[in-house]
Amino acid sequence: MSILTDELSVINAGLPLIVEGVPAAQVTQLDWRPPAFGDADVARLALTLDTEVTDAANAVAIAKVHAVKPQLTRIRPAREVMPGIAEGRTLLHAGPPIEVERMCGPMRGALIGATLFEGWADNADEAIRMLDSGEIAVAPCHHHGAVGPMAGVIAPSMPVLVATDLDDGRQAFASLNEGLGKVLRFGAYDSEVITRLTWMRDVLGPVLDRTLEKYGPIDVTSLIGQALSMGDEGHNRNVAATSLLARRLAPTIAELEPNSDSVAVLAFLAGNDHFALNISMAAAKLALDAAIGVENSTLVTAMARNGVEFGLRVAGSGTEWFTTPVGPADGLFFPGFGPEDANPDLGDSAITETLGLGGFAMAASPAITQFVGGTPNDALAATRSMRRITLGPHPAYPLPPLNFAGTPSGIDVLKVLDTGVLPLINTGIAHKEAGVGQIGAGIVTAPSEVFLKAARFLAEQRAHT
Amino acid sequence: MSILTDELSVINAGLPLIVEGVPAAQVTQLDWRPPAFGDADVARLALTLDTEVTDAANAVAIAKVHAVKPQLTRIRPAREVMPGIAEGRTLLHAGPPIEVERMCGPMRGALIGATLFEGWADNADEAIRMLDSGEIAVAPCHHHGAVGPMAGVIAPSMPVLVATDLDDGRQAFASLNEGLGKVLRFGAYDSEVITRLTWMRDVLGPVLDRTLEKYGPIDVTSLIGQALSMGDEGHNRNVAATSLLARRLAPTIAELEPNSDSVAVLAFLAGNDHFALNISMAAAKLALDAAIGVENSTLVTAMARNGVEFGLRVAGSGTEWFTTPVGPADGLFFPGFGPEDANPDLGDSAITETLGLGGFAMAASPAITQFVGGTPNDALAATRSMRRITLGPHPAYPLPPLNFAGTPSGIDVLKVLDTGVLPLINTGIAHKEAGVGQIGAGIVTAPSEVFLKAARFLAEQRAHT
Repeated sequence: MSILTDELSVINAGLPLIVEGVPAAQVTQLDWRPPAFGDADVARLALTLDTEVTDAANAVAIAKVHAVKPQLTRIRPAREVMPGIAEGRTLLHAGPPIEVERMCGPMRGALIGATLFEGWADNADEAIRMLDSGEIAVAPCHHHGAVGPMAGVIAPSMPVLVATDLDDGRQAFASLNEGLGKVLRFGAYDSEVITRLTWMRDVLGPVLDRTLEKYGPIDVTSLIGQALSMGDEGHNRNVAATSLLARRLAPTIAELEPNSDSVAVLAFLAGNDHFALNISMAAAKLALDAAIGVENSTLVTAMARNGVEFGLRVAGSGTEWFTTPVGPADGLFFPGFGPEDANPDLGDSAITETLGLGGFAMAASPAITQFVGGTPNDALAATRSMRRITLGPHPAYPLPPLNFAGTPSGIDVLKVLDTGVLPLINTGIAHKEAGVGQIGAGIVTAPSEVFLKAARFLAEQRAHT
Repeated sequence: MSILTDELSVINAGLPLIVEGVPAAQVTQLDWRPPAFGDADVARLALTLDTEVTDAANAVAIAKVHAVKPQLTRIRPAREVMPGIAEGRTLLHAGPPIEVERMCGPMRGALIGATLFEGWADNADEAIRMLDSGEIAVAPCHHHGAVGPMAGVIAPSMPVLVATDLDDGRQAFASLNEGLGKVLRFGAYDSEVITRLTWMRDVLGPVLDRTLEKYGPIDVTSLIGQALSMGDEGHNRNVAATSLLARRLAPTIAELEPNSDSVAVLAFLAGNDHFALNISMAAAKLALDAAIGVENSTLVTAMARNGVEFGLRVAGSGTEWFTTPVGPADGLFFPGFGPEDANPDLGDSAITETLGLGGFAMAASPAITQFVGGTPNDALAATRSMRRITLGPHPAYPLPPLNFAGTPSGIDVLKVLDTGVLPLINTGIAHKEAGVGQIGAGIVTAPSEVFLKAARFLAEQRAHT
């Protein structure tokens, strides 16, 4: 406060309404929020968790995650490489577990499409009956080592990307990206969709697999690292990683027979700017799974949405899901659509943010603000704010606009509760009705409830050991 | 100055030594420099040029430049498409005109290589004799509508990129980029170099030309615009434009026969991160040539170096060159090399800066600072400082990190003289001996002398009309 003037200077650490009436120019509003989102019980529990034991466990957990160097090794049918889906009729979906009858439109549509694609049913009605009756089992991708964007449906015949940790042989899987337009992951299941999936099974998958066999594994960490210096953030913008990969593999693809298949595969890669998204998802899943089960660690190992609920997994609580209803996604809508058309947030793609890509790496991608909203300065601020809730920079992912500091990596439940800062997630927005497709994109935050639930669980767990 | 303290506050518009002894914290040093680099005569002449006539002419000139939308239409042998080199034995070189005996090592080496490549001589000694005797004529690329990086040597049999203005049919040309290592443009001429040039003539050029015929012209403005949102600055960093182009053309290339040629061309594109540089050079040349001869305009239409002299062309003085000796390039050297090994600055590639790419678009490319030195903040500052000497933002080249402001475009001789700010040029550094190759990269400034000479010429010209 100046002694020469009548000016009042106020620093407010509370709610803005406390200083209502004071001219804005005189108020410095601190970005302070009550711990544990105002839940006094959880705030107290969080204090009991905030110990050296937790620090040590988190150091172990994040080191395990950062040590993984995922290699894209194969592209094989899911039934051949994924554990537990070879036998019987099982379809996988995005997010935490959910019963078929509670699923949202796009996810039901995608399951119908997958049932038709597998030839288990001749028409949609029959597929619906088989799904509703339980004749076809459903399970989360995450329960089978996999991730899928949006509806995230993986069927046994679909080719999946195989990300491998060559040090310990662990693998993670993701579906192949279909491109934009009418696609299964947004719940479309007409003949155009099935025809494309059939081509992906019969041509795209085998051609790319033979390419990888000949070329050798792709170091995904290096690919994403380079893409982050080229405006990708690894979730909603993937044009650099896709272009680098397509250019690198093109000579090997062109060598394969028949040449018409090579040409078609090169054309598909040239037309799909998001092809690399699913690769970064599989790689992120492989890295984060390395921390599952690290006792006492409060590191988040997965965030995933099934279109009805948001699910969170934490290293110290193993494969437990903490869930809460998920709200509609908001952001920039394509012409003709608005928030009232939006499905609640959907997909396993938030695994990229869980590692430090996507919303966490916004600083790398000033151009993405034209797609998800905001300004380039907002993008820098977004990444900076994620530093407050993460365990440290990712050593392999420097962000040039932030002077090559590593992207904030490894969400700590305790830091989220302490700061009240929620993880940012770049997301595509699906129409709530099956098959309409993508209607926008934007930035959402993870819901606070799952962090409160996780803290309660971890504190209880700690109390019993 | 505060009345409450003894603190002194100083604003200094002069040389820093004027305020020597004053604590640094109390001095605000303005970035003011004497007009016309302290040359009082030219400062006076510049005032006579700084009129509404000049403003109007510059508005016309820059509008002409920005209206050009170069299309990459063909890749044909130079002798077939370039004016004036079909007959006789002529070789083209970078920069303003220079006699063979005054040329630097890398340029002499490149001319020897081109002579061997054309089969005009059987060995280097014979080639040297033919060049020194004038049996082989030499001329600047710029005098034949072309540009070439580093030594910039173009021989009649070499395939050249053809950039076309579809509105008026004008064309500009550039050699194909050979990649790194032992290459002609750095003065190497051993059998490896000649073998590659022969392959480029017999396979790369024809395959890419047939590809363009089938695919249609490439809109270079759109390609560069997209690359600027992916970390390229269009001069020393071209990995985005190259990857986008290779990925887009790959299906068409793969369709051509024989397939082994397609595979070799795709492998070449996959291995050469600078392939797109020469495309952006041809496009910049085409755009800037549109302003040649706009009377009374002080817009710079070319900056080019021949390794001995720096040359400048200005719209209002047509095809006149203003030249001055050029200094050694400085920057980051590859291991084992230093400034004492560097050739004076070389090449037509500064045509990219003349349009607003390269050093002017540094803000787009924080990652390039690892290659040319400095920090990402320096990159932003570089672009901002170029605003002071340019006529306006390029409407087709928004820079995301600067909130999508267009890159500073169109150097105005009068603004350079008024501010004392010299154009920044990103450059590769060649070893001074022929054939050693690239030994570093860095940022140089254009020499002030050429702007002083241009102003004198333009003022004299104006006085006589």
